[in-house]
Amino acid sequence: MSTLYARIADHYLQALQAGTLRAGDRFPSVRQLMRTHEVSLSTALQACRRLEEAGWLEARARSGYFVARPRRQALPPAAGPGTRAIDPAAYVGISAHVSAILARGQQQAVGVNLALAVAPPPMYPADALAGIMRRRLLQAPRLLTTMTRRHGNPLLRTALARRALERGITAAPEEIIVTQGCIEAVNLALRAVTQPGDTVAVESPTFYGLLQILEGLGLRAVELPTHPKDGLSVEALSFALDSDPSLRAVVVMPTLHNPLGCTMPDERKAALVALCAARGVPLIEDDIYGELLAQPPRTLKSFDTGGDVIHCGSLNKVLAPGLRLGWMLAGRWQARAEMLKYTLSRFPEELGQAAAAEFVASPAYERHLRRLRDTLRSHREAYADQVAAHFPAGTRLTLPDGGLLLWLQLPDGASGDALFTRALAHGIQIAPGSMFSTGRRYDHCIRLGCGRAPDEELLAALKRLGRMVDGPARGR
Amino acid sequence: MSTLYARIADHYLQALQAGTLRAGDRFPSVRQLMRTHEVSLSTALQACRRLEEAGWLEARARSGYFVARPRRQALPPAAGPGTRAIDPAAYVGISAHVSAILARGQQQAVGVNLALAVAPPPMYPADALAGIMRRRLLQAPRLLTTMTRRHGNPLLRTALARRALERGITAAPEEIIVTQGCIEAVNLALRAVTQPGDTVAVESPTFYGLLQILEGLGLRAVELPTHPKDGLSVEALSFALDSDPSLRAVVVMPTLHNPLGCTMPDERKAALVALCAARGVPLIEDDIYGELLAQPPRTLKSFDTGGDVIHCGSLNKVLAPGLRLGWMLAGRWQARAEMLKYTLSRFPEELGQAAAAEFVASPAYERHLRRLRDTLRSHREAYADQVAAHFPAGTRLTLPDGGLLLWLQLPDGASGDALFTRALAHGIQIAPGSMFSTGRRYDHCIRLGCGRAPDEELLAALKRLGRMVDGPARGR
Repeated sequence: MSTLYARIADHYLQALQAGTLRAGDRFPSVRQLMRTHEVSLSTALQACRRLEEAGWLEARARSGYFVARPRRQALPPAAGPGTRAIDPAAYVGISAHVSAILARGQQQAVGVNLALAVAPPPMYPADALAGIMRRRLLQAPRLLTTMTRRHGNPLLRTALARRALERGITAAPEEIIVTQGCIEAVNLALRAVTQPGDTVAVESPTFYGLLQILEGLGLRAVELPTHPKDGLSVEALSFALDSDPSLRAVVVMPTLHNPLGCTMPDERKAALVALCAARGVPLIEDDIYGELLAQPPRTLKSFDTGGDVIHCGSLNKVLAPGLRLGWMLAGRWQARAEMLKYTLSRFPEELGQAAAAEFVASPAYERHLRRLRDTLRSHREAYADQVAAHFPAGTRLTLPDGGLLLWLQLPDGASGDALFTRALAHGIQIAPGSMFSTGRRYDHCIRLGCGRAPDEELLAALKRLGRMVDGPARGR
Repeated sequence: MSTLYARIADHYLQALQAGTLRAGDRFPSVRQLMRTHEVSLSTALQACRRLEEAGWLEARARSGYFVARPRRQALPPAAGPGTRAIDPAAYVGISAHVSAILARGQQQAVGVNLALAVAPPPMYPADALAGIMRRRLLQAPRLLTTMTRRHGNPLLRTALARRALERGITAAPEEIIVTQGCIEAVNLALRAVTQPGDTVAVESPTFYGLLQILEGLGLRAVELPTHPKDGLSVEALSFALDSDPSLRAVVVMPTLHNPLGCTMPDERKAALVALCAARGVPLIEDDIYGELLAQPPRTLKSFDTGGDVIHCGSLNKVLAPGLRLGWMLAGRWQARAEMLKYTLSRFPEELGQAAAAEFVASPAYERHLRRLRDTLRSHREAYADQVAAHFPAGTRLTLPDGGLLLWLQLPDGASGDALFTRALAHGIQIAPGSMFSTGRRYDHCIRLGCGRAPDEELLAALKRLGRMVDGPARGR
């Protein structure tokens, strides 16, 4: 499909992304390219220019091409918590706003979906899981016609408890409650510890799904300053607890935060757990992206001594988005969470649990995770480079250490909502910043999911997206 | 394991249960039995006496044994809605009571579980479903690693919409929301139409799971008189709507009610829908057992012209308890229910949906249903016969036309809770009537699940259970 020069450029792009060729290295000469690929001078030159244009190469006079210092390093880091005043009239139902955006994305034909917070299907071990399942179905077809087991499949609960151990959590398999994804776990956690009308502290920005849950449960969100590098401000939470007696719970995504991508340092995590324990406020930890960090850090739960932390995890982002398997440890609220899970939806189907258990307990899981993390790192870097090359001056980005998401701050005056609308008309979907707050604090931001490989079409879409931003550099 | 005479009795028991030998037929003579089975006179006689004792045969002087008119026909039908006054102090949290009973059942080793409202695994088409799944897994393993589809798998939604057509419901596949069982559908329905603090009208007695849902959502239940034969009293609902302005929704199980087993006649269904439409009150229909009736009757939804009925269905009881697949049609509240489902748990895993879709759309499904209904009918009759033979005088029972459940009214003075405790100590689990009401209206009742085949052990357990009832006939 692609032209000859594009194929050659792609060939070297892989080496550049993989780090085989590093910043400062001399790039093969045009003559060498002509020989290696048996192409004309013009084709070899076009390939080089393409990589130069994408920011991977720089031409030095009379010396040929060199691998450029990644352009992403020129991006200023995202700014800290803002102090913008919020128009109180903006506090309308976030669900309606989010639903409208999600619905618009579905009505339009989307060629490049940058709104997804998940990797594409081939990046997960589908064949291995399918093989396990086919074997199970031969051995025990009645798994399908037997009532599902209380709190989940024992093998999966054991496998998850063992993984949790590596994150500093000591839990018996019997304490693990298997859920329908992390979303259901967070729902159950909130229902276990709050009553309608209560206030819940969340990070700002925060995952729009959480804002929808809060609204659905009749809870009020108070959004706390959160730094793009270090996460939630524990000081701000302390102040909020002093000033709002209706504050009944805190929900935090301390590792690979959605949308910021940041991870709280251990000492902040410890301080947060200590604060909540001292105030007797339940602390709900959403760890859905935790295992996407190369050295998965400690969890909030690992600092918990009194059962004040409810830990919620998931296999959706790391193993199999199609299985919808999540889980939770509910600390002091274990019995109540178990009862609510039973009341709400009973227990998940067994086949997927059995297959996931077998895979997670095998060495193949760790191998898969390493591959997934490496691939995602190269994606994040390629995306960031393309952003650096084609977004207007003033665009800010803090490159996360792991995960699937990039949080971009657009130049002053640019609107994420406007960009969303314009991009959608060109078949490109993004998540505008306005989804991540009940106010309109983040309309100057967008979230990009970088699960998809940075192929031709993707890089072209990012480039076009950058050109659609109406920053002051470009005017309107 | 069993003795020779028991095996011979069992042989004929099957013929009696299948209707091969009918009431009034002459039973093979003792001499014939001796010849056929090559046994002694004493063994042949013991076999006959065993069947006589179980109520299947009656001896006529000088003519030998005849097939008896089933003993169950001697059981008086269950009494209508009671007028017992309820101690207001009894209105404590039903969830705590139900949870305590469920927990006690789990702590004890149970040999015969009569508390289950589901058929045993071999009565569902495990092999056929497993075969479909194995094929799908070979063709499309990435079903496991692809994000699940909005509102459910299109093939399943189409198959369900077609089945609904036969129940008088016209719905586009796009209107079907696939859920995690019927339980989640009812949860979503209630969250779509109520606010915490509202009152919801339910049948009395009603499924304890519904009472738990209501309590979990902060809703108040008002329990309406419900006849063991014809179902909910529409007049009582009309009166309740007049007198309680906080009444915001009605939840009904109009077909094969749990626990009563009754089905509302069509004209009552029509009247109920008309009443709710006239008052603008949402009517939630739980149809989980609907397809277990030989001629599945019309649904409430089929009488609905203005979208006032939310219909909830499930494949758990009729196809595959291990798949946890339910569904709903939310009428006027469709958009809100879709949003809540997304917010609560996203969408179910695809593999089970795809397999269920293929099976439900095939002729094998109708064949399976016919077999399941026939088997359950013979179970219900055998259980009822054994109850008639061994429960004390004064026990009442209305034999349902379909389904898995028998609702027994014990003689005056007998307690279902006491029987539960006594039976559990003997490894027999039942569902005491106290679970089915927030008051203590039904402590004189028990619910028996009759999914399990009436084998030796089961019949012995029923006999023992009958002897444990402390009716006035037997005293304490």
